[in-house]
Amino acid sequence: MAGNTFGTLFTVTTFGESHGPALGAIVDGCPPGLALDSGDMQPDLDRRKPGTSRFTTQRREADEVRILSGVFEGVTTGTPIGLLIENQDQRSRDYADIADRIRPAHADYSYMHKFGVRDYRGGGRSSARETAMRVAAGAIAKKFLAGQGMRIRGYLQQLGPIAAEVLDWDCVETNPFFCPDPDKIPEMEAYMAALNKSGDSIGARINVVAEGVPPGLGEPIFDRLDADIASAMMSINAVKAVEIGAGFDSVVQRGSEHRDLMTPEGFLSNNAGGVLGGISSGQDITVSMALKPTSSIRQPGASINHAGEPIEVVTTGRHDPCVGIRATPIAEAMLALVLMDHFLRNRAQNGDVESPTPVLPAEAPESP
Amino acid sequence: MAGNTFGTLFTVTTFGESHGPALGAIVDGCPPGLALDSGDMQPDLDRRKPGTSRFTTQRREADEVRILSGVFEGVTTGTPIGLLIENQDQRSRDYADIADRIRPAHADYSYMHKFGVRDYRGGGRSSARETAMRVAAGAIAKKFLAGQGMRIRGYLQQLGPIAAEVLDWDCVETNPFFCPDPDKIPEMEAYMAALNKSGDSIGARINVVAEGVPPGLGEPIFDRLDADIASAMMSINAVKAVEIGAGFDSVVQRGSEHRDLMTPEGFLSNNAGGVLGGISSGQDITVSMALKPTSSIRQPGASINHAGEPIEVVTTGRHDPCVGIRATPIAEAMLALVLMDHFLRNRAQNGDVESPTPVLPAEAPESP
Amino acid sequence: MAGNTFGTLFTVTTFGESHGPALGAIVDGCPPGLALDSGDMQPDLDRRKPGTSRFTTQRREADEVRILSGVFEGVTTGTPIGLLIENQDQRSRDYADIADRIRPAHADYSYMHKFGVRDYRGGGRSSARETAMRVAAGAIAKKFLAGQGMRIRGYLQQLGPIAAEVLDWDCVETNPFFCPDPDKIPEMEAYMAALNKSGDSIGARINVVAEGVPPGLGEPIFDRLDADIASAMMSINAVKAVEIGAGFDSVVQRGSEHRDLMTPEGFLSNNAGGVLGGISSGQDITVSMALKPTSSIRQPGASINHAGEPIEVVTTGRHDPCVGIRATPIAEAMLALVLMDHFLRNRAQNGDVESPTPVLPAEAPESP
Amino acid sequence: MAGNTFGTLFTVTTFGESHGPALGAIVDGCPPGLALDSGDMQPDLDRRKPGTSRFTTQRREADEVRILSGVFEGVTTGTPIGLLIENQDQRSRDYADIADRIRPAHADYSYMHKFGVRDYRGGGRSSARETAMRVAAGAIAKKFLAGQGMRIRGYLQQLGPIAAEVLDWDCVETNPFFCPDPDKIPEMEAYMAALNKSGDSIGARINVVAEGVPPGLGEPIFDRLDADIASAMMSINAVKAVEIGAGFDSVVQRGSEHRDLMTPEGFLSNNAGGVLGGISSGQDITVSMALKPTSSIRQPGASINHAGEPIEVVTTGRHDPCVGIRATPIAEAMLALVLMDHFLRNRAQNGDVESPTPVLPAEAPESP
Repeated sequence: MAGNTFGTLFTVTTFGESHGPALGAIVDGCPPGLALDSGDMQPDLDRRKPGTSRFTTQRREADEVRILSGVFEGVTTGTPIGLLIENQDQRSRDYADIADRIRPAHADYSYMHKFGVRDYRGGGRSSARETAMRVAAGAIAKKFLAGQGMRIRGYLQQLGPIAAEVLDWDCVETNPFFCPDPDKIPEMEAYMAALNKSGDSIGARINVVAEGVPPGLGEPIFDRLDADIASAMMSINAVKAVEIGAGFDSVVQRGSEHRDLMTPEGFLSNNAGGVLGGISSGQDITVSMALKPTSSIRQPGASINHAGEPIEVVTTGRHDPCVGIRATPIAEAMLALVLMDHFLRNRAQNGDVESPTPVLPAEAPESP
Repeated sequence: MAGNTFGTLFTVTTFGESHGPALGAIVDGCPPGLALDSGDMQPDLDRRKPGTSRFTTQRREADEVRILSGVFEGVTTGTPIGLLIENQDQRSRDYADIADRIRPAHADYSYMHKFGVRDYRGGGRSSARETAMRVAAGAIAKKFLAGQGMRIRGYLQQLGPIAAEVLDWDCVETNPFFCPDPDKIPEMEAYMAALNKSGDSIGARINVVAEGVPPGLGEPIFDRLDADIASAMMSINAVKAVEIGAGFDSVVQRGSEHRDLMTPEGFLSNNAGGVLGGISSGQDITVSMALKPTSSIRQPGASINHAGEPIEVVTTGRHDPCVGIRATPIAEAMLALVLMDHFLRNRAQNGDVESPTPVLPAEAPESP
Repeated sequence: MAGNTFGTLFTVTTFGESHGPALGAIVDGCPPGLALDSGDMQPDLDRRKPGTSRFTTQRREADEVRILSGVFEGVTTGTPIGLLIENQDQRSRDYADIADRIRPAHADYSYMHKFGVRDYRGGGRSSARETAMRVAAGAIAKKFLAGQGMRIRGYLQQLGPIAAEVLDWDCVETNPFFCPDPDKIPEMEAYMAALNKSGDSIGARINVVAEGVPPGLGEPIFDRLDADIASAMMSINAVKAVEIGAGFDSVVQRGSEHRDLMTPEGFLSNNAGGVLGGISSGQDITVSMALKPTSSIRQPGASINHAGEPIEVVTTGRHDPCVGIRATPIAEAMLALVLMDHFLRNRAQNGDVESPTPVLPAEAPESP
Repeated sequence: MAGNTFGTLFTVTTFGESHGPALGAIVDGCPPGLALDSGDMQPDLDRRKPGTSRFTTQRREADEVRILSGVFEGVTTGTPIGLLIENQDQRSRDYADIADRIRPAHADYSYMHKFGVRDYRGGGRSSARETAMRVAAGAIAKKFLAGQGMRIRGYLQQLGPIAAEVLDWDCVETNPFFCPDPDKIPEMEAYMAALNKSGDSIGARINVVAEGVPPGLGEPIFDRLDADIASAMMSINAVKAVEIGAGFDSVVQRGSEHRDLMTPEGFLSNNAGGVLGGISSGQDITVSMALKPTSSIRQPGASINHAGEPIEVVTTGRHDPCVGIRATPIAEAMLALVLMDHFLRNRAQNGDVESPTPVLPAEAPESP
């Protein structure tokens, strides 16, 4: 219980079910004096919202967020920011027939064992619809961090078997997949069309990058920056794995290969992914994660009902065939929340003092 | 700051530097009435401690833990358990010459930026020596969980290029690598011998498994069981990536392939790794992680000193050529701490009530 | 920052300003399976709401609460309960002329120094209007605790110079003061009428009592039941002092007088106020608190403006001449939140086990 | 469970029982760069330690604290500070005969119900001996705060019926009572001598004052500075009541009397006790508290044993006849811990920015 809050100094607490009247959040700990209105959140909410392309669920939600408190005369006051999004397109009737049926790979089975009851309409609280509030809260963090010189961006690195081979940031926002490789977009479109026809779903890999992060964010032992990032990303629906920097490639690397050498001109590589000893190094924070394929598919599968009897499940309703597609803004939001929290924690410690040693350039020199 | 505590209801707070007088921890929240003495912790401490084979650092530490409070007449009293290990073999002189030198891939650079000062002796607080206290605390959790039918075990899945192909639990404790594949041990020995000669280091992959976990542990949104596990593992020194269940393989899986179908006799697969919607399903919790190669190597590398001037670093002193080798008991301990915390959190919610729906067998039937 | 959450396992996070569009709260950690609808909260909200007698502010607010999540088919689901009350009667124009004026004894001065900005309309976040959400959340706790045999009730012990001499619970809800002494009500009415005429305000003393609390709630050192109660009560607007049991009378008591002797039939007195060593004893929890007089009065007073220049402040607008009058349901709510949290914390530790020693009757025998 | 940590950003976690091998604490979140050695803590530990006058318990403890981590080359490093005091004079045999006897007004009854077991030697964890670690930790906070211009001091305002009428700070440290009124000391000595002879004990009132606190510390709603102070003080053994500023006198004050008027030269009074809306105003923080009489007295009293049978209890062993006498340094320490925590929390929010409005002098002008 009581696990619906993220953060220590900059906290986000969310509520709301997929088919309830509304989603909401309280963002606590935002420094005062930040210019803020709902227009700062809407672009990211629009990037995440369903129904914007034929490759995502056809549920239609405007996802318009209202600020109910914490902002006065256009700036934050330092008091909690109440956020609300009213649900509009809840077709609960789609779910009546699954009230006592446990859908494989969903949270139905574990929720029943934990709570003894569950809101079965669209997965209730376990639906990724909850992440709309994370995106809204993350947009506030992003805006504050931008004022500190930080930028957080993400992209779809891989859609099932199709991996981007080029990172063209200008491409990311021009296609419904957040794919950074223009040459792969037609391939992805064809793949998704075939997938839809088959009634199946597919996994994905998302990468997020934070630039301009000052060295010194994070705590040495348990509240490491990378540990908090791992938790943040794994808390996103469907995420099954997280890497920082070289990630699993580190297993086969030698120390002479993995370590990022330094010259006065900067680091010569970034296998660390911007985190050394749990604390930011000033290099880009690089994170990668795996999202499992959507559990709701039209292909029948063996399962049980609440009485423990065998049944066959076919999930109709409206679902994303690849939950990874809409996950990019969510992952960005979570990374922003982690950095925001650690920025404040770090400022508690040192105030605004100057760095005691020279800060290396984040960018490695061209020819080391 | 203040990031040295792990957990919510069962908390572990540690202190101590690599070359300080002692390491210590306070374990708070242990239920009363658990039979406990230091002998319950020593076996895991011995599994982790340095100097037990020629493949680990030659620093000699008995790592004998004393219980200073919280246990009376052989049982826990519900009050905080104070633990202490005195350091014995601190050769601080090894480090005098690195006082103003930043070692690549270590925490030196980020610590200096965060704190402005650092205990450079053996890495101070950033040393993996701190994990001795986690292992001690984890042993308490393991013992309590064993009383609830849970078992947590780990092994070395891969040492650089050499991957175990067989999981023979009986083999794990018979070799210094925690390798579960008897056929790979000679290969690993030869690899490590050559590595030592070269003055280089290598990465590793560790797996941990929790059996007997009841369904219902974990919280739906941020404090998911898998999110907490990801944080716990990423908080271990050198860990750069974490997977639950199918992990990164999920990226290329189809939904029809990934989802774990259910029959009244049990789950038919375990791609979920025992976690559905952030909550345990009753299946084995399976976790895998990557550890980067040791940063301290004898091969020279470019770096800078505190003044930002270029230097060349050669790390002498005593170091593990593969930090992954000793990480198995640490990963087990962290998984035990997560499960212990969520066991208590779940009991807060429901008391000791019976499960509302049938609990499926954890083991899939032989022939589905 | 981030100080808008109360509790550890049963948490209440509130947002909202006096004259913003709405007040809201997220109640996290409520056990599943509790029958709940807004009708469970409305009676306490009505007891607290303004405009119900001529002795409180004439602002009119229906204070109708909506449940936005966490309840499905009439029972709680274990997921966060979102609550919302829309503000209706915000006459912000009353406040335009105080935008840069610091009202004595209000939070204006300290808020300006903390935040650099403030919502001056009705005190913004510092208004006691925020406590509506505490009352709503407290009603949920009260209902759960009632199912465990606990009852929490309060009353006005003293209105300025007029102290109740009789505790008649049946009287409390029959008068606008929550006064338990029928003979004092006319006196209070006359006093308040004169006070209103004078443009001044007055302090009050509120008592709350929890009956049926099982022994064992609370933690030994910092999170003592009485420490958490003290914090909870002092967090109510205008509270300046808190007593448990004998309170300040303890200063002049001898040990032989203060200690509550025990027989197999029960405790012989209750100077402890139901808390021994920070943990409930099974006796009634008795709490008393002082509320300062309302700061907003019509009598002019010296102050400064934002520029530090001397001004004279006369507070018009609509205000309670005695904030203590409406504080009884708030104090009850806070005590319920503390007990709810500790009930869950205690259950985490022990599950639902039987008490190891005989539980003494809460009521002392008639003739010791 | 898990209630042995105080604070949010500057945290103190303690362990240890009255008659165990040692007491310890981990102080986490101390900013780096603070010059610190055990000599900074010893004076306050000596002020609190037993056996220094004939008016306190005759148990002899050197209470010498060792710093085990977190300090390197004489300054704090930002990592957790491990503190240890070994117990020396544990005469556990004094307690063998009370193993199954419940002492009235002690924590015996409530601990048994909570934990099912208890360390009965000297009260185990419920002994005020634990507060030695709070005093040590508080001394670190005091030192840091002194560097920010803050000073925290306390005194015994009342010993049973004898109240100080003069506040002479120079007097406080010259007598074993921390009494600020030189004329009352002989009276107190005579009172205590008679009390010792009678085998009884007496209550006390302690006041603490923080000077130089900048405006802006504290959070608006639940984590108010005064709420945290109330919790901190009530967490001290034997404290039954807490007042801020005018405290219970507020009940009979009128608004025109209570409110602290302001001129550009300063506040004209301090009924608020330095806290407005939960946030410091820059005036002195004034706190008063009641301590109940020692529960361990030689006069026999009715009680029960673990089996619920009637017994008569006479507490021998060594005890303070007035626990209030040694409480002054403890109350100072707790106030320092609260201010330290809020200083850091406030700095997280604003960094080191200048105050947006003029700061009034803390001292009221002589003739308003």
